[in-house]
Amino acid sequence: MSSLKGNVLIGQSGGPTCVINQSLVGIIETAVGADAVDRVLGARHGIAGILAEDFIDVGKESQATLEAVAVTPCAALRSVRKKPTREECEKALDVFQKHNIRYFFYIGGNDTAETAHILNEVAVEKSYEVRLFHVPKTIDNDLLVTDHCPGFGSAAKFVASAFMGDNQDNRSLPGIKIDVVMGRHAGWLTAASLLARQNADDGPHLIYLPEVDFSVESFLADVDRMYTKHGRCLIAVSEGIHGPGGEPIINTGEVDSHGNVQLSGSGALGDFLSAKVKDGLGKGLRVRADTFGYLQRSFAGFHSEVDAVEARECGRTAMRAALAGDRPHGSVFMERASGADYHIDYKLTELRNVAKETRDMEASFLKGTNDVDSSFLDYVRPLVGEIFVPARLSDFPL
Amino acid sequence: MSSLKGNVLIGQSGGPTCVINQSLVGIIETAVGADAVDRVLGARHGIAGILAEDFIDVGKESQATLEAVAVTPCAALRSVRKKPTREECEKALDVFQKHNIRYFFYIGGNDTAETAHILNEVAVEKSYEVRLFHVPKTIDNDLLVTDHCPGFGSAAKFVASAFMGDNQDNRSLPGIKIDVVMGRHAGWLTAASLLARQNADDGPHLIYLPEVDFSVESFLADVDRMYTKHGRCLIAVSEGIHGPGGEPIINTGEVDSHGNVQLSGSGALGDFLSAKVKDGLGKGLRVRADTFGYLQRSFAGFHSEVDAVEARECGRTAMRAALAGDRPHGSVFMERASGADYHIDYKLTELRNVAKETRDMEASFLKGTNDVDSSFLDYVRPLVGEIFVPARLSDFPL
Repeated sequence: MSSLKGNVLIGQSGGPTCVINQSLVGIIETAVGADAVDRVLGARHGIAGILAEDFIDVGKESQATLEAVAVTPCAALRSVRKKPTREECEKALDVFQKHNIRYFFYIGGNDTAETAHILNEVAVEKSYEVRLFHVPKTIDNDLLVTDHCPGFGSAAKFVASAFMGDNQDNRSLPGIKIDVVMGRHAGWLTAASLLARQNADDGPHLIYLPEVDFSVESFLADVDRMYTKHGRCLIAVSEGIHGPGGEPIINTGEVDSHGNVQLSGSGALGDFLSAKVKDGLGKGLRVRADTFGYLQRSFAGFHSEVDAVEARECGRTAMRAALAGDRPHGSVFMERASGADYHIDYKLTELRNVAKETRDMEASFLKGTNDVDSSFLDYVRPLVGEIFVPARLSDFPL
Repeated sequence: MSSLKGNVLIGQSGGPTCVINQSLVGIIETAVGADAVDRVLGARHGIAGILAEDFIDVGKESQATLEAVAVTPCAALRSVRKKPTREECEKALDVFQKHNIRYFFYIGGNDTAETAHILNEVAVEKSYEVRLFHVPKTIDNDLLVTDHCPGFGSAAKFVASAFMGDNQDNRSLPGIKIDVVMGRHAGWLTAASLLARQNADDGPHLIYLPEVDFSVESFLADVDRMYTKHGRCLIAVSEGIHGPGGEPIINTGEVDSHGNVQLSGSGALGDFLSAKVKDGLGKGLRVRADTFGYLQRSFAGFHSEVDAVEARECGRTAMRAALAGDRPHGSVFMERASGADYHIDYKLTELRNVAKETRDMEASFLKGTNDVDSSFLDYVRPLVGEIFVPARLSDFPL
């Protein structure tokens, strides 16, 4: 039973998703009106907004506004990529105290969970009572513990639809086409391109994931073989591919405050591989590269319904748990029930179990060095939900 | 009154659109069962398929297959980028004669219309009677005579939705973001990004079109001003921008058989501009570039309803005109009725009026050197139809 009374504060952090505001609204709607809750506040730009005391009163929003915001992509509270120092975390706790923040929710990925974890350590040290919860989100799907991450299903639907279309494009105007997909550490999102393979000759014909060391030489041999077989070749490449020992394929030289190298927001990897194919397999080949970029995480008006519902429920679960008071802190995760029917239970784990580290694709989902096993389809299909499937002519002969 | 009896042949040519198969199905469903028509055939890969006599019997397809194909992006007959020589056109006419092709429909852009025009000249020379029609399609929207082109509305909806999402992304994680949009000669598709500007501070904050000479120096000054004003800057850049006299900004060195330089399928222009901003305005700035690429023309399961209906009707109009026999050849165009209500009349013009040349945006749609006039919204809104509009929090102060 909770007897902790005070204000609720919510922050969003890291890269956007199409359903990150569902989680925000799930927290707000569960908090508003609860006995223990005075006001429901939002920190603009996450931890940066906390340090600057840049708060807005989200508890005053109408349900109509909240519903409209819920279906809008990208952090409505605005986001941040900032790893606070220990001193900043101490200052953040002072701000909590000053504003009587007794419930804090941080929506984000593994770096965000780490910040929440450190804030919690500082709160314990200072003996400041605050319920502190991490709500998962990432299109990369690389958080530990949870079956999958809110945000992934919508991004996977985008990637699958992009490949379905580009497979038709490549079939219509044959050539070699490289599509670079987001995913810094893990290949989950790139693997979702497998959903586009409906017919035996459909692309992607090759799929390269960060879980397998990449070699330009093997890549060229693969492309040559597929191009010879199909007269065309559609390739899915994760932006996170690397050589043995994590050696980057190319290096843009830019690093964020969490030590992550800049991968997205540039066509460099695709163009590099495209040039390698032209140099290695023949100048006359029609080789093109597209880098899907931010569209994967923020395209407006296109999401997975399942993903939206789950993201909302993750937010509600965090607020309910905070109010129940059985645990002072934690991270929400989704557990998939075994059996044929897709069912998710919403649970809580320790912050430290989700902080910092990332989750690779299981080895059973990988197929050789350049493909994804079909068992992955059983995993990913329910997360994406209904999706448009292209059709072809029968090609009846004369 | 038509007394010309024989087979119908259909081809698709040039870059894909999301509704190019609506036109195909519009022709097929109007042809099948007509008294004058024996069989309804498709040439695979356009003029290349004609020369190779690579035909399929599309008249045998079920209505269910046709409807499924109609909503599938990219040329179901498969496409080609080939400008036939005079000799090849003569050979094509021999093939027509051999297969008693009396009705030929070529779906494509201005290069496709030119091929149809030459085929028609050769037919007249040879005194071979064939009804020869061009059905317009291009996401570039740069065909002469017609109010707009089938394929443009869907691509414009994609670009507008991409910018709506990316504007939220840029607002959420501020920085300088450059998005490169398709459009070789004309800025129509890039201008559609204007639909994303709902609030006064929404991006795109700058829009660069091929209709206005581009200068890197002015570009940097513009970005600096906007970034200072908004603390962020979202920029729409047409892939077709160029310096005075058509001087390319960068040159990939690749040219197709119509003499067109390769622009798409590479992130080079975006990365070039991104580097210029970092060099010119400060190494510490967060600058990213995305090149939307083929997604704009082939993304599966996302189109404008109006565009789909109009593309279908353009196909039907061509077949109806061919059967009516009032004119032996022509190109379908759409005329917009004056007045507040959007209404389109489907008409025919001479092939030579559409062949080869392209249509720039009218000067009245341009605003200075880096923006689009709001009058363009009246032009483009009906073509895009219903579109998701993002919402924001009210940012109520404490």
